[in-house]
Amino acid sequence: MAPPQVMKSAARSALGVFFEYDTPRIVHIRSKKVGLFNRFLQLSILAYIIGYAIVYKKGYQEFENVQSAVTTKVKGIAFSNGSIPGIGTRTWDVADYVIPPQENDAFFVMTNVVVTPGQTQTGCAEDPGVTGAICQTNADCEQVKGTILPSGSGPVTGECVPSDVPGSKEKVCQIFGWCPLENDKMQGDSPVLENAKNFTVFIKNNIEFPRFGVSRRNILGFYNDTALKTCRWKRGDPKLKFCPIFVLDDIARDAGVTFENMMMEGGVMQIVIDWTCNLDYSVEDCVPEYTFRRLDKGDYSVSRGFNFRFADRYSVFNESTGLQLYRNLYKAYGVRFLVTVQGKAGKFSIVPLLLNIGSGMALLGVATIICDIMVLYVLKAKNFYRDKKYLDVKGQDAFEVLEEEAGPGEQMSEGSTNSVSRRNLTASDGGAAP
Amino acid sequence: MAPPQVMKSAARSALGVFFEYDTPRIVHIRSKKVGLFNRFLQLSILAYIIGYAIVYKKGYQEFENVQSAVTTKVKGIAFSNGSIPGIGTRTWDVADYVIPPQENDAFFVMTNVVVTPGQTQTGCAEDPGVTGAICQTNADCEQVKGTILPSGSGPVTGECVPSDVPGSKEKVCQIFGWCPLENDKMQGDSPVLENAKNFTVFIKNNIEFPRFGVSRRNILGFYNDTALKTCRWKRGDPKLKFCPIFVLDDIARDAGVTFENMMMEGGVMQIVIDWTCNLDYSVEDCVPEYTFRRLDKGDYSVSRGFNFRFADRYSVFNESTGLQLYRNLYKAYGVRFLVTVQGKAGKFSIVPLLLNIGSGMALLGVATIICDIMVLYVLKAKNFYRDKKYLDVKGQDAFEVLEEEAGPGEQMSEGSTNSVSRRNLTASDGGAAP
Amino acid sequence: MAPPQVMKSAARSALGVFFEYDTPRIVHIRSKKVGLFNRFLQLSILAYIIGYAIVYKKGYQEFENVQSAVTTKVKGIAFSNGSIPGIGTRTWDVADYVIPPQENDAFFVMTNVVVTPGQTQTGCAEDPGVTGAICQTNADCEQVKGTILPSGSGPVTGECVPSDVPGSKEKVCQIFGWCPLENDKMQGDSPVLENAKNFTVFIKNNIEFPRFGVSRRNILGFYNDTALKTCRWKRGDPKLKFCPIFVLDDIARDAGVTFENMMMEGGVMQIVIDWTCNLDYSVEDCVPEYTFRRLDKGDYSVSRGFNFRFADRYSVFNESTGLQLYRNLYKAYGVRFLVTVQGKAGKFSIVPLLLNIGSGMALLGVATIICDIMVLYVLKAKNFYRDKKYLDVKGQDAFEVLEEEAGPGEQMSEGSTNSVSRRNLTASDGGAAP
Repeated sequence: MAPPQVMKSAARSALGVFFEYDTPRIVHIRSKKVGLFNRFLQLSILAYIIGYAIVYKKGYQEFENVQSAVTTKVKGIAFSNGSIPGIGTRTWDVADYVIPPQENDAFFVMTNVVVTPGQTQTGCAEDPGVTGAICQTNADCEQVKGTILPSGSGPVTGECVPSDVPGSKEKVCQIFGWCPLENDKMQGDSPVLENAKNFTVFIKNNIEFPRFGVSRRNILGFYNDTALKTCRWKRGDPKLKFCPIFVLDDIARDAGVTFENMMMEGGVMQIVIDWTCNLDYSVEDCVPEYTFRRLDKGDYSVSRGFNFRFADRYSVFNESTGLQLYRNLYKAYGVRFLVTVQGKAGKFSIVPLLLNIGSGMALLGVATIICDIMVLYVLKAKNFYRDKKYLDVKGQDAFEVLEEEAGPGEQMSEGSTNSVSRRNLTASDGGAAP
Repeated sequence: MAPPQVMKSAARSALGVFFEYDTPRIVHIRSKKVGLFNRFLQLSILAYIIGYAIVYKKGYQEFENVQSAVTTKVKGIAFSNGSIPGIGTRTWDVADYVIPPQENDAFFVMTNVVVTPGQTQTGCAEDPGVTGAICQTNADCEQVKGTILPSGSGPVTGECVPSDVPGSKEKVCQIFGWCPLENDKMQGDSPVLENAKNFTVFIKNNIEFPRFGVSRRNILGFYNDTALKTCRWKRGDPKLKFCPIFVLDDIARDAGVTFENMMMEGGVMQIVIDWTCNLDYSVEDCVPEYTFRRLDKGDYSVSRGFNFRFADRYSVFNESTGLQLYRNLYKAYGVRFLVTVQGKAGKFSIVPLLLNIGSGMALLGVATIICDIMVLYVLKAKNFYRDKKYLDVKGQDAFEVLEEEAGPGEQMSEGSTNSVSRRNLTASDGGAAP
Repeated sequence: MAPPQVMKSAARSALGVFFEYDTPRIVHIRSKKVGLFNRFLQLSILAYIIGYAIVYKKGYQEFENVQSAVTTKVKGIAFSNGSIPGIGTRTWDVADYVIPPQENDAFFVMTNVVVTPGQTQTGCAEDPGVTGAICQTNADCEQVKGTILPSGSGPVTGECVPSDVPGSKEKVCQIFGWCPLENDKMQGDSPVLENAKNFTVFIKNNIEFPRFGVSRRNILGFYNDTALKTCRWKRGDPKLKFCPIFVLDDIARDAGVTFENMMMEGGVMQIVIDWTCNLDYSVEDCVPEYTFRRLDKGDYSVSRGFNFRFADRYSVFNESTGLQLYRNLYKAYGVRFLVTVQGKAGKFSIVPLLLNIGSGMALLGVATIICDIMVLYVLKAKNFYRDKKYLDVKGQDAFEVLEEEAGPGEQMSEGSTNSVSRRNLTASDGGAAP
């Protein structure tokens, strides 16, 4: 043919690619047993895709996690009467019992405290309980002079002095450090800030879903200034369940624990604010839900509760010594509250929906695979169905299962026009030969 | 046959499994309408897979989230002249206005403050605004002696004393607590630390992608000690956009808010450092990007801003009373900055690429399903195509749609060699029998 | 037909849908080359699905991320002898060197400190290093009176005074602020708290997997009170690797850095507690694993280490001036430890297993696609196989590749009973016609 014609033909061939369509050939089997099983499998998969992946898991939405800022403000006054030595009659307010005064996504409320007031850097007798502290003469202490005994409170000065512990007649090495030594034994059997359970915390939580341009806060529209001051959170109440002011005791009770149990030795609680929002509905329905949990289960005998030490420092001018640095040391027991903000917003989007439908359709193929196993291997009529489904073709390099099968006339020979084993073709295609 | 031969034959059969290959039989339809539709669907899916899932979403990479450490250092000096009572002429530096001095991924800059200096534990008149505080005689207060009135400042002592509030002639119950009572009214209409907007913060951010063995920090190589001291972050500038020193006012302006608006009552801002790195390119291209956001929108009338209380404690030696504990109470307003480090690094990996290609190919099958619906149910020639696609096979337990169809000769009968309804076969296979 | 019969027939047709089953028709090719390639691809995919996705990645489990609470307690005493000016002979305990006293998921241990004691608000000479501070006469300073020089320490009072810097004979402007000015030069070449490397930290970590109802803590059952006090974490030791008390030096050594190197200028370290739990086994096997990392690589010349400033405030009563506010300013260098709790628990669940099997089966189809490419385009016998696989059907609106092909007798004509090009059918179906 002339070149122009060849090219034209090739061009048409290439163009033909756009006008063709391949679809698998199907054996349509009418059988009650297999059909029912097939439909049951397909329905199960469809139920999973539509019911679970699309409807329940909202497969038609795209999601974004919440961005959040939390600020907290504790309120309440506690009074400790003079029954506890070292503390005396004292009123405690928020600047006293929230340490540090502000934290990121957390706050600590002191409920019990052991105070060692008026420590200063000087020499005093080591705790007799410290290994190696007990001495008879200065010579015993000279040996360890300058070293800090294990669990000791400061370097040994070298002198052997009578113990400070009331009633003790032992002599111990003197140390240089914060003296008098810390008293870390709890006095009495009730916490110092007994009123702590009635303290309230106001949690202000601003959240944002930047991709959807939605900003919310946990003070809902119906709370004006007055309502906000007097409300207290209450689970189940249609309005008060959104009140952002919580009584500490209510938090504990809702978590299934008793606040009193945590007041002596401390504890750790979690306040979870959940913002699960469906932005296909009104943004007004995007509201927080509060849950509470005690994170350190209280039923341990070893290392229970939560405490830490801090100190107030001050200097006193004394005519003989000049300015002298002092501190009041506090061992603070209390409840640490962690505020966790979680949640995500979903909004309709076509991409995840199509992806879910697409992967669902691919999953439907699994039903066919399972039914094929039943049809081709389990049923009595398996050979009948196998004949319908399969067209057996022997390639030129076929592996011969039985030697006698490999007759020369039935094998495709290289170079010749491709031939097919008639026996196989007949068997597999069910062709209506004469 | 002899056993050895049977076994040999079985072995060959088993071996044969490794030398066979199944591929679906296809109807190749040449039709402009269907073909175009089919190719359009396939191209859309391919565009999604290649364009979106692989190229845009970098489906050829494996990812790791960033591990980060942030330290911040605020610098700047503010001066409050004596116009504000209780504070007086004072210079404020970083140790005064950053509270607490260091935090995890956050820092607070005090911009305004109300001070109640010299509080000590003693008795004083309750705030007349507290419900139940107003009294005529001591008898009124005796009734509530020892209780803390709601929103009161301490337990009632039982005495009825004149109110401290200037100009007030009412008598109120005396309480025991931190006295004088807190003054929490802002004085004047400008913030105490007016210069706060010119403060700078130096954010040091070390990040790591452990899986890829990449460590970076936000002080890029071209910043030596001198350049680092004088640079200020500026959006858009090719070099200064990487300067890790930020003027607080610039942060607010870039977030679209005015720093001055936050100075009186406080606010919460977020500094987002984004490390989205493509490690297929040079690691030098792995650089941070800064964005800023105000997290508490300022347009609320209820409970606006951010403040908290803290105190300085000190003891004063007084010859008559001995050592007395005092405190200066501060109600601090200011801006809380949260530093959020996010981002992930991607690097080429064969597994996600193959997975994306694989699931993409599975998705291509959806085009066929949609075209099949068109071809088999919509087109006029649907019966023609259906004949080509389907081979109708009646199983032995077929459900008879029409009773007369169930002729005895056409049904597969159990035990017999499997037979096929010729009518169906002819119809469905389109075999050109004579 | 009579309506009842029609309806009955339609109902039976509808019902028939539940008793039918479609399965693709397959060409079963027996060829060593293609078969082996096919089985190899399938085995690779199966290996990926079973070996990687299901077994290695535990595709048969559903997962939940850990919920955690961390509390830390540092212990240890450091002694600084009088060699460092401004600090003197002093013993440091936990209330001195952990600042702030408690943090969320972090703690800071001061290892070095520069103290400026006894600052008060008054006038003093500006640092001569500040640009614009040097003056000859008061007139020089009057010009900038009231302004804060860049990097200066307070507003200029207008007086020109001799510099405080020892040995300096320059005159500088006086400023009003915290005086004397901060001394931020490190004295000596060893850190103040040399013993810090021997400090221990007790990390208490309570975790929860709420969905699985599992709570654990990092103090395992075999640690009673005594064992807990004396144990020290040690990598590799079968028991001590679970000891929750860490020597700071051990943490650094395990991270591959030297604690001494961080003590002068500070640093940031990460303590990772990993709870990767397989809840299909005993919950007792759900144990923590500790790893450590230095987050700020120490090999930078620019802006190395970690430090911040804080102050102790105190008031002193002076007969001439009354109560005067003082502060001791500390520039604290030290190591910030971030505690990161990560991990997830897995438990057998049927849904993810089925999903993995399903998507695996879909993935198996990729093997067929790849083999098809080989069979239909690469092999010599491709036309033979193509004939077997494809049934070529020309639709009524087929695009004619070659004009002469479009013989009137071979085209499907609208309205007529559908006919098929015999040539194509013969070619593609391999029908054994006579």
